[in-house]
Amino acid sequence: MPPNPPPARSTGAPRDEPRPIHGVLLGSPEIMTTYIAAFEQVAPQCRLALPDAVTEPESVTFALAWDPGPDDFRAYPNLRLVSSIAAGVNGILASPSLPSDVPLMRIAGESQAQMMAGFVTWHVLWHHRRFGDYLSHQRQRHWERLPKRDAADVRVGLLGAGRMGGAVARALVALDYDLAIYSRSGRNLPAGVEGFTGEAGLERLAARSDILINLLPLTAQTRGILNATLFSRLPAGAVLIHVGRGEHLIEDDLLVALDSGRLSAASLDVFAVEPLPPGHAFWRHERILVTPHDACDSTPSQVAQEVAAALRDLDAGRQPASQVDRQAGY
Amino acid sequence: MPPNPPPARSTGAPRDEPRPIHGVLLGSPEIMTTYIAAFEQVAPQCRLALPDAVTEPESVTFALAWDPGPDDFRAYPNLRLVSSIAAGVNGILASPSLPSDVPLMRIAGESQAQMMAGFVTWHVLWHHRRFGDYLSHQRQRHWERLPKRDAADVRVGLLGAGRMGGAVARALVALDYDLAIYSRSGRNLPAGVEGFTGEAGLERLAARSDILINLLPLTAQTRGILNATLFSRLPAGAVLIHVGRGEHLIEDDLLVALDSGRLSAASLDVFAVEPLPPGHAFWRHERILVTPHDACDSTPSQVAQEVAAALRDLDAGRQPASQVDRQAGY
Repeated sequence: MPPNPPPARSTGAPRDEPRPIHGVLLGSPEIMTTYIAAFEQVAPQCRLALPDAVTEPESVTFALAWDPGPDDFRAYPNLRLVSSIAAGVNGILASPSLPSDVPLMRIAGESQAQMMAGFVTWHVLWHHRRFGDYLSHQRQRHWERLPKRDAADVRVGLLGAGRMGGAVARALVALDYDLAIYSRSGRNLPAGVEGFTGEAGLERLAARSDILINLLPLTAQTRGILNATLFSRLPAGAVLIHVGRGEHLIEDDLLVALDSGRLSAASLDVFAVEPLPPGHAFWRHERILVTPHDACDSTPSQVAQEVAAALRDLDAGRQPASQVDRQAGY
Repeated sequence: MPPNPPPARSTGAPRDEPRPIHGVLLGSPEIMTTYIAAFEQVAPQCRLALPDAVTEPESVTFALAWDPGPDDFRAYPNLRLVSSIAAGVNGILASPSLPSDVPLMRIAGESQAQMMAGFVTWHVLWHHRRFGDYLSHQRQRHWERLPKRDAADVRVGLLGAGRMGGAVARALVALDYDLAIYSRSGRNLPAGVEGFTGEAGLERLAARSDILINLLPLTAQTRGILNATLFSRLPAGAVLIHVGRGEHLIEDDLLVALDSGRLSAASLDVFAVEPLPPGHAFWRHERILVTPHDACDSTPSQVAQEVAAALRDLDAGRQPASQVDRQAGY
């Protein structure tokens, strides 16, 4: 593949916006400072700063946050909007100082959803078509055709029917997989895909999932949902593809399920502790594929665009498109 | 993944067909004898035999062939149908004894096309999303997020718009790749996909292909089409995914293009000599992925079903659905 094209240079666009909008960055400064440059470029009316550089906290009307500390929101009494830098908001909701009456939004653009769809599709095909065996055979210069099963005979169960789930579903339907979806509401399912909801629905979905994909948001209800009980409902030899949040998975239960053969393999992109510690059993497990929480990215410029659009929505009296339902937790 | 389910057992269906239809298997007996059992099961009125077991060659009305010898067809004066066991017919057309006036068909079922779509999609994602780097990082217990590019910014060029090309296109469009297609006729393109045809069209398609996929049939016009001239039209660092026929590729030209950086990587499923000889440079090339001509399979029972359907079509005065255009060569 050719290298990525260089980013477009700032054009020094005239700042004809009358009033600057002040924002603060809350969370790990090392991963967040690139956002200041992105806002300067694509939303120059928004002046984003780290807390140390904020001279008048009363003037700050929006916060961009990722894993903020417990008191991080307290200094800013006039917030109109809080945004995550990604699809997850569980770290923000965990901060006791988050004001209860301020709209909270997440970044959930189509670009991210498409990246997730490609990432998950690759893992489904990897397991279904045994590409690991092909790679290993090439190292041995060994020519061996493998038995094949039609995608239509591979039952895939998807947990989660949000924007990302929808993009994953479209790709898997295009590839003819026998897809079913579990979600909280049971709504927004692609045409022709069977939906499951509720605890009994989750059990039934698991029982028909040769490949189980987790794309749920992390909430009080979904924490630890990937556990021994759920694994025991899967067909013997099933595969887990886990791209939700680390806290969805009971890690020891996964290792037991792999040892017993209940699960034949797992693809894991998210972990309880990230980066995954070098001594962790997952790194060297021959039937676990580890990736570094990298299924998809929102670029800083996408974040700046979506936050600026949400601020315009608020000015116009509209609810931001990606506003989080705090009751549901996502 | 659970093991494949056991094949359905023969039900010993009553053979109430009045007249048996005799067929002969031409080609490598070792890979073809499973077809006799498949015909017994799904098309019992068709009696398929190897040439040695044919007592009355005049009674043989159809031939199932794969790489037949030059004289293999000569003994059978009453053929009504010749079928390949797969999508390719170039080996059959190469036999001088193939009667010129007998309908020739290939196997081109939807199941095969879907298998091809999954196989190609996996390779596109492998290169685009750098999964080889993730695998290598896991071996080193190394946590590193990778730069990402939207699928919409990855230009994929597909050579071939047949049934398989159509299935590949649907999957890549669902994943948001920037797809364009080159084909002989320029017809049958999916909605919204740009089409190219003719020699100038091939050059223009190559110039906009970060990833070039070859799915063309092998004909006099396409033999050697993957050569230094075509590679020189590609953007620097492009990727080749070759799932057509070995004879499409000038192998030395590929190695030169990889050495020069014109191509950054290649996925090869087909080769001039198969199985790929153990000493061949492709096996150990660090930027070539070798698979054993295994992108898709037609199962013997699919072949039996499609041949039996074609014989019924001929009885009813209809042209078989998968009849080959001998002029076009596929």
